[in-house]
Amino acid sequence: MRIVVLGSGNVATHLALALNAAGEEIVQVFSLNLNHAEALAKKIQAEAINNISKINRLADLYIISVKDDAINSIASELRGIEGLVVHTSGSTDIKILSSELKNAGVFYPLQTFSKSKALDFGNIPICLEATDEKQLDILKNIAQKLSPKVYLIDSQKRRVLHLAAVFACNFTNHMYYMSKQILVNNNLDFDIIKPLITETADKILNYSPENVQTGPAVRNDDTTINRHLNMLADLPELQEIYTTLSNSIKLSHK
Amino acid sequence: MRIVVLGSGNVATHLALALNAAGEEIVQVFSLNLNHAEALAKKIQAEAINNISKINRLADLYIISVKDDAINSIASELRGIEGLVVHTSGSTDIKILSSELKNAGVFYPLQTFSKSKALDFGNIPICLEATDEKQLDILKNIAQKLSPKVYLIDSQKRRVLHLAAVFACNFTNHMYYMSKQILVNNNLDFDIIKPLITETADKILNYSPENVQTGPAVRNDDTTINRHLNMLADLPELQEIYTTLSNSIKLSHK
Repeated sequence: MRIVVLGSGNVATHLALALNAAGEEIVQVFSLNLNHAEALAKKIQAEAINNISKINRLADLYIISVKDDAINSIASELRGIEGLVVHTSGSTDIKILSSELKNAGVFYPLQTFSKSKALDFGNIPICLEATDEKQLDILKNIAQKLSPKVYLIDSQKRRVLHLAAVFACNFTNHMYYMSKQILVNNNLDFDIIKPLITETADKILNYSPENVQTGPAVRNDDTTINRHLNMLADLPELQEIYTTLSNSIKLSHK
Repeated sequence: MRIVVLGSGNVATHLALALNAAGEEIVQVFSLNLNHAEALAKKIQAEAINNISKINRLADLYIISVKDDAINSIASELRGIEGLVVHTSGSTDIKILSSELKNAGVFYPLQTFSKSKALDFGNIPICLEATDEKQLDILKNIAQKLSPKVYLIDSQKRRVLHLAAVFACNFTNHMYYMSKQILVNNNLDFDIIKPLITETADKILNYSPENVQTGPAVRNDDTTINRHLNMLADLPELQEIYTTLSNSIKLSHK
């Protein structure tokens, strides 16, 4: 398999490194920013390009891992290519590729990526979709080299997964941020709350979230809720979020 | 140290087990529900009582670990006792005890407890407060046997911690619940999203939440946000939460 990676962001970087470590040959890394392309290409002995006309059009697999709204224009540039072209986006339909290209697919690793944080790909669910069985087999074969958690997920279900991930990851991280704001505003160190964050996430591996909900809202403890709302008087935005979420917890546990 | 534990809920249970494992002598467990008192007392070779008039009034330390609104009445029952009386509540002032009792304090383990899940106390921050230095030393001495993370936190700051914990734990768990709802409504398994939950919490140990925020809101990706809102048409409550939190993330990262 000769692979071309298009993109040099968080997902492109982690995926290229993992594929390289699994013994796959990545021949090119494309990025509009040549420095970014080179930074990644150097790590995996690939060629860095920033001009899409220089792309190797005879590779076996093209992985487009760019911002969602840039996938379309890259797909147009790849028109006529015989190899399999996939994107890595949770919220983008396979059609964006299959309407332009003969062999298309999706290779969506369901994880949050930061360039600077090492990741064990072996624990990442990889969600696959392809235009036909043969292309799907190619993707399955590669995905299984990276992770035992390989799922076949169509575009509609992948969108659902992505939405669920916004709650489980993006909104959760924002909860951490608001928690930190409250502590820092009162000269307390964010570190003190980290074991609680770890345990809250750890619990969910073995328990259903509805069975381990704790706190004033699930106890209908309005005295504490009102005291908390008073304490948030200087942070009206957090006050609104506190009210909305407490009401939602109460409703869910009626 | 002869210790009496008043309460048999999640915190009382974990704390009593940890103290027992650390070699402390727990002489009595009080609970209005005798079965609950006995279940815990049996595990730590203590006497179970459900009548507070039978309490051993000569112990060194009394740990009141009950619902916040029941602390007051228990404190009244303990009036006249010479030993140190503490509660374990994040949101309750030390005054609830010090107004009734000579030697009072707070022993607040900042963690989320479920009876059925084993916990390593060694990673739990323990927040202490006491009416005087001598009582504080007694608490420090015991706390250090359980955890290296011992903090001196007054009642005002402890209330702040508790509020921050509502965001970091209670609201976060509710995010997991909503994520599960979305998946289950679409015949997807909650398990598929668990590695994402783990990594999101893991990241925060080494990065500031504002620096690792990902998702459509922080990218100002209104196309995806609007698609997600449409997908939540059948779950108007989640739709409202999605809007509120996305706006808050946008504002925080302006």
